[in-house]
Amino acid sequence: MPQSLDELRFQLALANRMVANEGVLDAFGHVSMRHPDKPDRYLLARSRSPELVEPADILEFTLDSEPVAAPGVRLYGERVIHGEIYKARPDVTAVCHHHAAALMPYCVAGEELVPVYHLGAVIGGQAPFWDQRDDFGDTNLLVVKPEEGASLARALGPHWVVLMRRHGATVAGRTLREVVFRTIYSCRNAEYLTQAKLLGIPSPLNPREAAAAADYNLAEGPVSRAWEYWTMRLAKAGGTPPRAPGGRTVRSVGRRSKASGAKKTSKASKRRSR
Amino acid sequence: MPQSLDELRFQLALANRMVANEGVLDAFGHVSMRHPDKPDRYLLARSRSPELVEPADILEFTLDSEPVAAPGVRLYGERVIHGEIYKARPDVTAVCHHHAAALMPYCVAGEELVPVYHLGAVIGGQAPFWDQRDDFGDTNLLVVKPEEGASLARALGPHWVVLMRRHGATVAGRTLREVVFRTIYSCRNAEYLTQAKLLGIPSPLNPREAAAAADYNLAEGPVSRAWEYWTMRLAKAGGTPPRAPGGRTVRSVGRRSKASGAKKTSKASKRRSR
Amino acid sequence: MPQSLDELRFQLALANRMVANEGVLDAFGHVSMRHPDKPDRYLLARSRSPELVEPADILEFTLDSEPVAAPGVRLYGERVIHGEIYKARPDVTAVCHHHAAALMPYCVAGEELVPVYHLGAVIGGQAPFWDQRDDFGDTNLLVVKPEEGASLARALGPHWVVLMRRHGATVAGRTLREVVFRTIYSCRNAEYLTQAKLLGIPSPLNPREAAAAADYNLAEGPVSRAWEYWTMRLAKAGGTPPRAPGGRTVRSVGRRSKASGAKKTSKASKRRSR
Amino acid sequence: MPQSLDELRFQLALANRMVANEGVLDAFGHVSMRHPDKPDRYLLARSRSPELVEPADILEFTLDSEPVAAPGVRLYGERVIHGEIYKARPDVTAVCHHHAAALMPYCVAGEELVPVYHLGAVIGGQAPFWDQRDDFGDTNLLVVKPEEGASLARALGPHWVVLMRRHGATVAGRTLREVVFRTIYSCRNAEYLTQAKLLGIPSPLNPREAAAAADYNLAEGPVSRAWEYWTMRLAKAGGTPPRAPGGRTVRSVGRRSKASGAKKTSKASKRRSR
Repeated sequence: MPQSLDELRFQLALANRMVANEGVLDAFGHVSMRHPDKPDRYLLARSRSPELVEPADILEFTLDSEPVAAPGVRLYGERVIHGEIYKARPDVTAVCHHHAAALMPYCVAGEELVPVYHLGAVIGGQAPFWDQRDDFGDTNLLVVKPEEGASLARALGPHWVVLMRRHGATVAGRTLREVVFRTIYSCRNAEYLTQAKLLGIPSPLNPREAAAAADYNLAEGPVSRAWEYWTMRLAKAGGTPPRAPGGRTVRSVGRRSKASGAKKTSKASKRRSR
Repeated sequence: MPQSLDELRFQLALANRMVANEGVLDAFGHVSMRHPDKPDRYLLARSRSPELVEPADILEFTLDSEPVAAPGVRLYGERVIHGEIYKARPDVTAVCHHHAAALMPYCVAGEELVPVYHLGAVIGGQAPFWDQRDDFGDTNLLVVKPEEGASLARALGPHWVVLMRRHGATVAGRTLREVVFRTIYSCRNAEYLTQAKLLGIPSPLNPREAAAAADYNLAEGPVSRAWEYWTMRLAKAGGTPPRAPGGRTVRSVGRRSKASGAKKTSKASKRRSR
Repeated sequence: MPQSLDELRFQLALANRMVANEGVLDAFGHVSMRHPDKPDRYLLARSRSPELVEPADILEFTLDSEPVAAPGVRLYGERVIHGEIYKARPDVTAVCHHHAAALMPYCVAGEELVPVYHLGAVIGGQAPFWDQRDDFGDTNLLVVKPEEGASLARALGPHWVVLMRRHGATVAGRTLREVVFRTIYSCRNAEYLTQAKLLGIPSPLNPREAAAAADYNLAEGPVSRAWEYWTMRLAKAGGTPPRAPGGRTVRSVGRRSKASGAKKTSKASKRRSR
Repeated sequence: MPQSLDELRFQLALANRMVANEGVLDAFGHVSMRHPDKPDRYLLARSRSPELVEPADILEFTLDSEPVAAPGVRLYGERVIHGEIYKARPDVTAVCHHHAAALMPYCVAGEELVPVYHLGAVIGGQAPFWDQRDDFGDTNLLVVKPEEGASLARALGPHWVVLMRRHGATVAGRTLREVVFRTIYSCRNAEYLTQAKLLGIPSPLNPREAAAAADYNLAEGPVSRAWEYWTMRLAKAGGTPPRAPGGRTVRSVGRRSKASGAKKTSKASKRRSR
């Protein structure tokens, strides 16, 4: 990937804001990505609500979830979720942790999340549960210790979505765009499944259908189409992150991001999404 | 219809964006129309989220869903849905395919969608189901082969809405405005029916009521009133498509579409809706 | 009431847009008021979605729902709802007819709407049902004939809200602000009641509580507080109606309504709501 | 707390608007705070919808809920809710009273509100019910007499959330930010619990988990992160309160609050939230 680090930071800030703008993340939750040139490092924002993340907030972490440079800023308590999954799953390059309204009832009631339409198939063949009580007894339910993150990663296993009892969900992907796509469409699928259960007896996809539909929908075409759409929706909501990285110039960047900044982003994203 | 092709493209882009702005379409789904002068052709956007469609994105297709001019752009995989319905139903001049939250639970649970208020009567006497499994066994659930589209068109039969198991819905109309009206009000009807089922036992319209109410509501008056309303809501959301067709001038058009462009559209639509 | 007719038209346009902006009205539905100087006349817009109504759209009707001046514009088909209620109920000076998502499930399932919190008490002691089938058999469910409106007015009786089976609701008030308040808070009450029924067994207000709470909440203080709030929300959404009445100047008025017009309205409404 | 009274008024106006902007308060409901220098006084707006409250609307009250200066403006009828809780609970420095859609079904059906995820643990160990009928028989359900407020405060006891049958909820906190955080996340928790009950059998946090999770989430880090997020969302919605206190200058302040005002606030809040 020949992208500059500035561009990567921008893309990751964009992903955080995009998923928040679609109602999946709120004050809490976060999206990370593995460093494309250093597989033993990952990128994640400093402790900040995802819809506010700027490229300058993105820090580099070891897979033990230690910041590479001591930044003097507050860090997310739950960053081991990301680090331990990157350790356990070399094929994963992006992770999203969230508490979305669509999935929480499944985490609370322990009901199985199954794909009920072609786009929901991006959940994968199975969305296993993880219960912090099993390995750790009574906790504050936060995943802050490395062994808690490792336990969660074991529960995820070879799958792409893990439902955390009384907590939320963690979603993995092979690319940043894929993790965004999977995160949002697993929520849509859950909403439809919940309503279908209220109406009658849902008829889910069978495993062969689910595998074929996931293949189709995770190809570059559908994923890019959706990425362009969510980028546009974020821009309309005035949420495109500023381009410039730094501290000193934040004020003027802020001003630009409302006017020409948004426009530039949109052109750029159009070019990329072909 | 003495409208120019430019005007038709604008209207179709408007319809795509309008239905998306009302929450029926998201990153996926599409609205097409039959070419008014060439009944063996239809108009549909290149592969792009409906809320982003511009007049310049609208392409011409044969009823076999082949593009008339090789465009060098990505096409919707599911365009045979449109082509095969236009083939089977000469009375249909517009088609919308979607996965709206309101209807998906019916597609997932296989519960019948019946009209429960006068505006819901635009669904028509019956909304048949189509299950891709019946003719094709295990698939990726996408409707991409001509025979899949033809099978769907047979399931639609003489009706106006077909519910596709584990996939979505396809809606047909005699005009572009009618298909938009039917798409949106069949979703409202489904929302009310779902809630009524949770409350108690719904009492639907009987067939004579449904036929009479559909006649009333699909007349020019109600359909134009709603079209003006959705056009205004789209304009308020900053979503009116740009007027100019081309590639070179998109930037300046974009600028105009936020200011005077939106105003012009609104005046134009007022004139038309009398 | 020493208000000019221009001011009345503005207030009625504002009420229509306000109730639409709160999600109660969509492309259809309407709010009317009795003429304050001529009790045998009422004011209602020409056929247009309520969120688009301008003061210049407001027409005068006899209680037989005939326009006083032949206007050459399309009229609402269901205006007899308003005329027949004004005939039957001299104490009523404002009427709203709607198909809100919150109430429709009650109209479809025939479940009783009861007040479950103090603000919901504005529904009144009882919300009777009206079934067009009882007097008229199979119809298109629209209330377009005078005898249909008169039948509905009889079902309303001395109450303030009537639920129309498979159609919607009609709400009456002693002032324009009261009908807006009752319309919106009867919807909120219905939403809470529906969810409470899903959770367990609702415990409604008893008749004495309901009467006392309605008295409290329909006093000038609460009604003005809410009116100021909905006016502000409409202004934020860019929906304040233009002030000028006429046809010729609509274009420039439209321009003003986005800038200084909105500001003026908001100041004006603040003054009034003290 | 070395903040000026002007700053306190601004913060309280901000809190009112923020909680309204998140959909918890509508035309009714209010947030108060204890006066930091005079523990026998509290600050609350004059009677006005919370989303409209300006710093200049904030008045000082005795714990008997009498205004310290006779203001000549209308006061909230239910201010005794605040005064009596401040009397009974010296540890409480902020109170929010609301009728949010998420909690009302629990108040109506009398179903217990239990924490089902870590952020929901901020509800506290128990959310007791208060039924005005128990002490006062048939009333208008408003809490306007001191003895009604005192009865409610007794029901709250040592807890942080009290559910008022057929009325709403009252939430207490040790800081203004804490009461906002608890108010919003108790609503999210209720939404997830309601949906989980429809899906199956919820598995709530046990008391030790709930205590530990509340401790974690009510620390400065999470509370500040959320406060920054809700401040940003309010600013995006154009709802940041004006800074200047007074009557004469409201017009120019209003103008500033849309442009530079919002920007300043956001910078200020960033500084504070570190």
